[in-house]
Amino acid sequence: MALINRQIHLVRRPRGEPTADCFALVEQPLGAPGPGQVLVRNEVLSLDPYMRGRMDDAKSYAQPQPLDAVMIGATAGEVLESNDPAFRPGDKFAAKFGLGWQTHAIVDARAIVKVDAARVPLSYYVGLLGMPGATAWYGTMKILEPAAGQTVAVTAATGAVGSIVGQLAKAHGARVVGIAGGAAKCDYAVRELGFDACVDYKAAGWKDALGAAAPGGIDRVFENVGGEIFDTLLARMNPFGRIAVCGLISGYNGTPMPIQNFRSVLVNKLRIQGFIISDHLELWPQAHRELADLVLAGRLKYRESAAEGLENAPAAFLAMLKGGNFGKQIVRL
Amino acid sequence: MALINRQIHLVRRPRGEPTADCFALVEQPLGAPGPGQVLVRNEVLSLDPYMRGRMDDAKSYAQPQPLDAVMIGATAGEVLESNDPAFRPGDKFAAKFGLGWQTHAIVDARAIVKVDAARVPLSYYVGLLGMPGATAWYGTMKILEPAAGQTVAVTAATGAVGSIVGQLAKAHGARVVGIAGGAAKCDYAVRELGFDACVDYKAAGWKDALGAAAPGGIDRVFENVGGEIFDTLLARMNPFGRIAVCGLISGYNGTPMPIQNFRSVLVNKLRIQGFIISDHLELWPQAHRELADLVLAGRLKYRESAAEGLENAPAAFLAMLKGGNFGKQIVRL
Repeated sequence: MALINRQIHLVRRPRGEPTADCFALVEQPLGAPGPGQVLVRNEVLSLDPYMRGRMDDAKSYAQPQPLDAVMIGATAGEVLESNDPAFRPGDKFAAKFGLGWQTHAIVDARAIVKVDAARVPLSYYVGLLGMPGATAWYGTMKILEPAAGQTVAVTAATGAVGSIVGQLAKAHGARVVGIAGGAAKCDYAVRELGFDACVDYKAAGWKDALGAAAPGGIDRVFENVGGEIFDTLLARMNPFGRIAVCGLISGYNGTPMPIQNFRSVLVNKLRIQGFIISDHLELWPQAHRELADLVLAGRLKYRESAAEGLENAPAAFLAMLKGGNFGKQIVRL
Repeated sequence: MALINRQIHLVRRPRGEPTADCFALVEQPLGAPGPGQVLVRNEVLSLDPYMRGRMDDAKSYAQPQPLDAVMIGATAGEVLESNDPAFRPGDKFAAKFGLGWQTHAIVDARAIVKVDAARVPLSYYVGLLGMPGATAWYGTMKILEPAAGQTVAVTAATGAVGSIVGQLAKAHGARVVGIAGGAAKCDYAVRELGFDACVDYKAAGWKDALGAAAPGGIDRVFENVGGEIFDTLLARMNPFGRIAVCGLISGYNGTPMPIQNFRSVLVNKLRIQGFIISDHLELWPQAHRELADLVLAGRLKYRESAAEGLENAPAAFLAMLKGGNFGKQIVRL
């Protein structure tokens, strides 16, 4: 009897905030792997803010997610059958570019890489040792280059990327101020991640709190959010500051987010650099090596927020876009 | 009988757009130069947009212009008396940091440098071979690094800085699109400066004209203006584009100028760099050498807009802030 593959398709493009009816669960029988192919089971799926951008049919840095096709996404799991000598059943894998929101897949063996799930949990390969980890490392080490004496502000501070950025900046001697939504996240950023301060942007008077947390101004910003938070940071930059623009999640649903304080770029001679980690694939091995060393040495904490079951992926994704996750959002399949 | 020194003082800080009553003409007798000092006559005064910023009492990249003191500004002229062996009466000079809006000055001889007014006109030393030239050269050569196959957009295209930027970018093989106010300036940019196209932002349909002038998008922007023009350019940037932010003259009077298209920074992985040329004094000699070579070889055109007489400096300055100048604005004293 053939295996049944369960998939989540994008069936409707959102207008503004996405809703559950943009997605549909589709079941279909799996065939058998052909020559050079493998049949795999995805055990973990990564949910990431960039997926919201792909749901639109607009010009962006990547092709839109097609309608009535499996949603894109990073996955890791186990090889069930292999017609390639490089893999045997039972091997754990991570997919180079993700196999999407589905329980199984039949793909060319070159689309996956074997990973050591005894060294770190398998799920880390879609986060810390996947795209989010590479993103945090590149933005921190190659754009911000934080140093002792500097104050680094990180938005979405407890998210997959932000939590790594802040800890890397700390490891390089900087003072780190997180910005996150809610007291629980802020407590976590300070007590567990070791940030020097964390500002709850949902609390009244948060701009004053930011001023108190960074009394000498801000030298580096790792930007995941955009909108009013970004504008507030922009106004507090020190001369020769740098801003890595990794994401602008507050605008992903088409919400206008005018920047009022652009003059700070001139007055403070700022450098702003937008980046997408897929432009820098050659640096992923170095990034992942350094991050793995830190996490294995106990010098970097990594938290996950897991939904259970493919059918719950859409709800977890929608919640994540509103900041409902706490750490890297994954789905266990 | 003592010489009378005529000066323009800032006597009132503007609210919004500056007005003539912010300035006052003051006359006072000149003393005699002390040991190591020179008495000089300023023959030419430079008027530059940055002066508007100094008139405010706000945090910026430089100290505010003090009230009831001579307005700052670059000058060049002739030595009248010298108590320093390096200078003789009749020597032509440029002041290192400017001697301000006044006809004469008594200063330490180290505050001026001797210049060759036979090689290029004396007035060039406050423009092409002064701060504006260094600014254009640095932003173009060190930030934008234009190359063949790229489209470079330059705002305030016929101004002191913009006209040099565009010609330098052309000299390095780029396609250059100017943005200027009025048909006469645009004609000049194309016919005289050799730009590939120039868009008159005061004309109806200018955004469509920009699209037609840069059908393949924009790779580099040299930004002098800010506001809606900048926002429009931002939306048309190509991936990996760069923007040098040299000035934001449209906001100098406190006009809000929200940026709507900041998302382009992320989507197109842009680099934006604000800069102030006084941070890069070590490169001025190289900049001026290269610019002098180009102008003497007839490969760079340089136009000036001259007011006559110190008493007309305020009106010329106010007009310049509204784009009334055509080329580098100077005052002949």
